[in-house]
Amino acid sequence: MAKDNQFVKDIADIETDFPQWYTDVVLKTKLVDYGPVKGTMVIRPYGYAIWENIQRELDKRFRATGHQNAYFPMLIPESYLKKEAEHVEGFAPEVAVVTHAGGEKLAEPLVIRPTSETIIGEMYSKWLQSYRDLPILVNQWANVVRWEKTTRPFLRTSEFLWQEGHTVHATEEEAMEETMKMLGVYKEFAESCLAIPVFTGRKTEKEKFAGAVATFGMEAMMHDGKSLQAGTSHYLGQNFAKAFDIQFLDKDGTHKYGYTTSWGVSTRLIGALIMAHGDQRGLVLPPVVAPVQAILIPIAAKKEGVLEAVAALKERLAAADIRVDSDVSDNSPGWKFNEWEMKGVPLRIELGPRDIEAGKMVLVRRDTHEKIEADLCNAETVVKELLAKIQKNLYELAKQNKERRVVTATNMDEILAGVENGNFVKAGWCGCRECEDKIKEKTAASSRVIAEGETAETCACCGKKAEKVVYFARAY
Amino acid sequence: MAKDNQFVKDIADIETDFPQWYTDVVLKTKLVDYGPVKGTMVIRPYGYAIWENIQRELDKRFRATGHQNAYFPMLIPESYLKKEAEHVEGFAPEVAVVTHAGGEKLAEPLVIRPTSETIIGEMYSKWLQSYRDLPILVNQWANVVRWEKTTRPFLRTSEFLWQEGHTVHATEEEAMEETMKMLGVYKEFAESCLAIPVFTGRKTEKEKFAGAVATFGMEAMMHDGKSLQAGTSHYLGQNFAKAFDIQFLDKDGTHKYGYTTSWGVSTRLIGALIMAHGDQRGLVLPPVVAPVQAILIPIAAKKEGVLEAVAALKERLAAADIRVDSDVSDNSPGWKFNEWEMKGVPLRIELGPRDIEAGKMVLVRRDTHEKIEADLCNAETVVKELLAKIQKNLYELAKQNKERRVVTATNMDEILAGVENGNFVKAGWCGCRECEDKIKEKTAASSRVIAEGETAETCACCGKKAEKVVYFARAY
Repeated sequence: MAKDNQFVKDIADIETDFPQWYTDVVLKTKLVDYGPVKGTMVIRPYGYAIWENIQRELDKRFRATGHQNAYFPMLIPESYLKKEAEHVEGFAPEVAVVTHAGGEKLAEPLVIRPTSETIIGEMYSKWLQSYRDLPILVNQWANVVRWEKTTRPFLRTSEFLWQEGHTVHATEEEAMEETMKMLGVYKEFAESCLAIPVFTGRKTEKEKFAGAVATFGMEAMMHDGKSLQAGTSHYLGQNFAKAFDIQFLDKDGTHKYGYTTSWGVSTRLIGALIMAHGDQRGLVLPPVVAPVQAILIPIAAKKEGVLEAVAALKERLAAADIRVDSDVSDNSPGWKFNEWEMKGVPLRIELGPRDIEAGKMVLVRRDTHEKIEADLCNAETVVKELLAKIQKNLYELAKQNKERRVVTATNMDEILAGVENGNFVKAGWCGCRECEDKIKEKTAASSRVIAEGETAETCACCGKKAEKVVYFARAY
Repeated sequence: MAKDNQFVKDIADIETDFPQWYTDVVLKTKLVDYGPVKGTMVIRPYGYAIWENIQRELDKRFRATGHQNAYFPMLIPESYLKKEAEHVEGFAPEVAVVTHAGGEKLAEPLVIRPTSETIIGEMYSKWLQSYRDLPILVNQWANVVRWEKTTRPFLRTSEFLWQEGHTVHATEEEAMEETMKMLGVYKEFAESCLAIPVFTGRKTEKEKFAGAVATFGMEAMMHDGKSLQAGTSHYLGQNFAKAFDIQFLDKDGTHKYGYTTSWGVSTRLIGALIMAHGDQRGLVLPPVVAPVQAILIPIAAKKEGVLEAVAALKERLAAADIRVDSDVSDNSPGWKFNEWEMKGVPLRIELGPRDIEAGKMVLVRRDTHEKIEADLCNAETVVKELLAKIQKNLYELAKQNKERRVVTATNMDEILAGVENGNFVKAGWCGCRECEDKIKEKTAASSRVIAEGETAETCACCGKKAEKVVYFARAY
């Protein structure tokens, strides 16, 4: 895509240098900034407002499925991590450790939660008595710290914000049902709120959560054809129940271990939004999560009545629960058009003396650049309908992109060609870790999720009988 | 107050052992639990729901006064703390320090934020360019860690949740106006949402925030006459602006330091609620922040139609935006009455076969224990009106208590007698730190806030000319 005007000259080319385009866009739109400590980020008001919209939409869904929020301590005794063998192996290399507090050396070091299965498990063990207490359905909104070597704002940072659901159930069936239900909640949310179609499915043993019996993931395709893990739901079996003694007295009078699950999404989702919908001009935000859904721009602002008309329309739209703002700064209309396009606002509304006189307004869609003239008298309805259309169109565009960019491979060369061309590659896999590692090594593509209900003849790596079909892709 | 029934036998007497009453109530109502690390707390769903209601109400007010939310990193380079001399002196003894991360020793230790003036100051210095960028009005909802020796759930814990506003202004006047405006927001919120009348005013030098020019506090009177600092608003002058180089190019073409403020309230407010309104039966929650505003209890639940009627009423009230729940467990109605009274639910609604037949319901107020029979057909209106009455009554009761328990003292003996009888004591003060320390030493009462516009002849400690009138009280 050509750089289509002078104002975007500072954003790198989206096709030839997507990583730099991403950095330019997140910084210039003031979504985020680098924190003083390497690998940390500051989520600026414009970025945080997206997170608040994501939180509101998800929280509604968590409540509708019977979950309650709670808050557990961030500092976890180091020994807790060690109670589940796989868990400590996975997380110990990434934790930040508090060794001193209150001017003294601590008797036992504390780790800052990289995730909370351990400390929540400890509390559930204390709270859970009888089958009557089940299921326990709790979610937490919190910050977590995972020390990463290579970081990028939103995608991978030392500290990030997320939600983590932690549940306990009486039976394997119920816990598995919860695991799949929450994966479904994430998928529905991603599609209807973020306008991002996703691939969901079980992760391979290599890619599963440290300590889980099975991890189910939601993968989203980015502009460059790479995958972003956008959410996971873990069936933990009795692994943590046994490690933390989460037992209950069942109806039959015997003590049994519970079955637990955990599931989470994070501020990564903001990265997903940016990389799924953005274009050369900058961000393109789906209306459901956009901080500003419509931006009002006065034309010939100094002419009598223009600013008053803008203020009046702003008030009307706000009263109709539309997230609206106006730009009444001294900058030129052209500058403002570009600025708010870069910021990804779904709808621009221009209002000048002639429009006002004619009882009209001009609306410009961020997704299609289409200009629409409409009557001011039913502005609320017009704006709401257009926002709904934009939301739908963004989803359709992303879906077409997703469907167009899935290819099938039967050997290593085809996998390599597929991912080099920016595709997700479906390939047969024998099920062994060696082949998975070899594919990663040769193509830089990892297994994303196992394709449910699909079959292939042979493993694209070793040529032996295929056990499963897997989506391979390069990933963020 | 006599222990008025068998069900509260496990709650300590509120008059003779208020500290134990507090501990019993917060644990038994499942508001909170102790975390595994000394001094930490787990905020359980019932407690967290109060916090969410507090957040919603405050956030609305912050937005209405032009503030936006953002999120800054939790880990702060240790050297930042040292940039403001008073600040480091105040907070260094309380910080938790991360010395290792990602398996390696860090080149510079990081402190977990005890408050964020330093890291936010660093970012503002980078972001602020011109007078056009002012004012900067940002708030953060976050966790903070302050290592405390003596801790109690909600009141003083190593980690707690709070909000911290951080603003920058072009002039001293604007910054002072912001400081007082946010103190006013806190006061209005405390009175109208928490139903707690508060004392507000300037803090003495001794009691001010480390690094502030002036701190203004909001103090609430608890059941035992002790004070709880429920919120503070700090005018920071140019202290942090100079330490972090927060400068802007002014209209006159010169670079100037900004003037900053910060203000915060925390999960302490939940402690304030409990200790201001609770009674021998347990919690008494103001409707505006109560997780459950009305609890439906079926009478003769097994009789035909009772559970259906309860479910139908629940649905109607929920549709009218009333936070309603029903208790359809196997426990007896008597057990349920006591349980939900202990949990402080403002309104109990009893529904039995005879009520249903007559198209009636029985409502019982938590605050007055008054029983009211009302028609089912306009349940929504009846419930809403009663909730409003309860909110108002709780405020009135607290206000009467507050007014009744302020005494005046002219010497040390009177201060001591006043606080021993559970009062706030107003006394003249010469203004010197020595007298303030002496009063604290002899009476265990600290200066809470300076009474605005009041005068006294002499200092109650040294007998010299009084400069100010101060509220002294023992405090949490």
